[in-house]
Amino acid sequence: MTFEKDSNILIVGLGLIGGSYAMALTKKGYHVTAISKEQSDIDYALENGIIEKGGVEVSRDAVAGADIIVFALYPHVFVEWMREYGSYISAGTLLTDVTGVKGAVIEEINSYVPAGAEFIAAHPMAGKEVYGVRNADDGIFKDANFIVVPTRSNTPGAIEKCRALGEVLGFKRISYLNPKQHDEMIAFLSQLTHCIAVSLMCANGDPNLVSYTGDSFRDLTRIANINEDMWSELFLLNKEALLYEMDCYRACFDKLYNAVKESDADVLKSMMRLSTERRKMFNKDGKNI
Amino acid sequence: MTFEKDSNILIVGLGLIGGSYAMALTKKGYHVTAISKEQSDIDYALENGIIEKGGVEVSRDAVAGADIIVFALYPHVFVEWMREYGSYISAGTLLTDVTGVKGAVIEEINSYVPAGAEFIAAHPMAGKEVYGVRNADDGIFKDANFIVVPTRSNTPGAIEKCRALGEVLGFKRISYLNPKQHDEMIAFLSQLTHCIAVSLMCANGDPNLVSYTGDSFRDLTRIANINEDMWSELFLLNKEALLYEMDCYRACFDKLYNAVKESDADVLKSMMRLSTERRKMFNKDGKNI
Repeated sequence: MTFEKDSNILIVGLGLIGGSYAMALTKKGYHVTAISKEQSDIDYALENGIIEKGGVEVSRDAVAGADIIVFALYPHVFVEWMREYGSYISAGTLLTDVTGVKGAVIEEINSYVPAGAEFIAAHPMAGKEVYGVRNADDGIFKDANFIVVPTRSNTPGAIEKCRALGEVLGFKRISYLNPKQHDEMIAFLSQLTHCIAVSLMCANGDPNLVSYTGDSFRDLTRIANINEDMWSELFLLNKEALLYEMDCYRACFDKLYNAVKESDADVLKSMMRLSTERRKMFNKDGKNI
Repeated sequence: MTFEKDSNILIVGLGLIGGSYAMALTKKGYHVTAISKEQSDIDYALENGIIEKGGVEVSRDAVAGADIIVFALYPHVFVEWMREYGSYISAGTLLTDVTGVKGAVIEEINSYVPAGAEFIAAHPMAGKEVYGVRNADDGIFKDANFIVVPTRSNTPGAIEKCRALGEVLGFKRISYLNPKQHDEMIAFLSQLTHCIAVSLMCANGDPNLVSYTGDSFRDLTRIANINEDMWSELFLLNKEALLYEMDCYRACFDKLYNAVKESDADVLKSMMRLSTERRKMFNKDGKNI
């Protein structure tokens, strides 16, 4: 099953991810409309053939006429939008999102979904450390993971349609997690890594370091270039899971610290062997990349 | 000043870095000889035109006939080699190395350098997470930093010759640090990053994570694939500086942890702004890579 080629797809929020969704879907022949807050972003997307129609006002017709609506907004903006405009949505419309946390928003979002429409959460595990529709690039989905995040109230049809969306967008691998599993996973793989990168970058301000560095340090700090409004919101909406993962990581870091302090080469080597073994699972195309 | 084209260069230790040095120097027309412990590595390098001559025995003639000797060995192997064979070295020979720590070895190495020869330490900030001469690749030097690490006993001629070596190898930027500065810098930029990657990889063994991950996690853990013998030795030889950097980093991590716990978005955002600002200094070609 997939959705029909003449489907009307509405993207709400034309940033990097919303823009990349629009680009991919337009290329596949869908009718893509966008609503976003900056007219210049809409103009750019129209001029570059990323969308068919668009505007900065929330048009009742555009919302009511959509077969699928994709919300690519900050979590609190998504909730506010649904509170204000949810009633415009027609029965039969499938709603989905790209939000980085799920447990904290799904229930409230569902309370604004009109009867006959259905919201199913999803998380495209793709991105760049740049923002905005001007950096939109549907190539970021090619080797990436797409996660469908159903709750018990989702229908099989909606779950399948969301999976099909991930396929149409070009994702390499599609998985399913419930909201709690999703939030625990994202706390470790994404939020903790951002905490580490920010902490590392804050730990030393020597401006000469760039003359000495190798690429390892660059790799570890690329995501230290971070949108503070979005990420502080994501961290705080997933506080419990994030603190748990930070605790687990710090216990390992402290174990390594104590091994250095005690000159315990055996502990150092056993941690290094474990990390080497585990890292192999993440190889891409058989390579350590 | 540079060294003459007909210089004889001896590489001791034909691993990834020794092999990449040999490859670059052979391409530039120098006479490169290698001594390494595995005959198969020597055979590979001879068959692939990486070296002109080589063997597994420490030939007195090869050592005495070298104008420059590059040691690409583990620190303790380097020290043992000099203790055993240092007396073979001729007056006028320049010795250099690629060792990842300096303060812990320079003095002992110097005690084995015969009169008229001179050792000047250097650190090529380039590598891969693979090992051995079969992965040798002189392209890794192209965008990389080369650090000359003179002590007060080094002559201006030797310092200049070591700089010229970095230039001939193709390094983009050449800097100078004394051994203490070098070891502090390397504790932060290289050793701490490896501690972080290993700790992160040890913190969660869920085999399903690869189905959900984005590239951020891959970037942070690439160096978690680590040679435990080499890195445990490097950590312990630079213990004081490494523990200091681990402490500084952990203080920042704890500050961020507490901000999440207290839902203090202001502290989170100010740390993220600082990290974003500082990360810009490490941009390559104006890009966040």
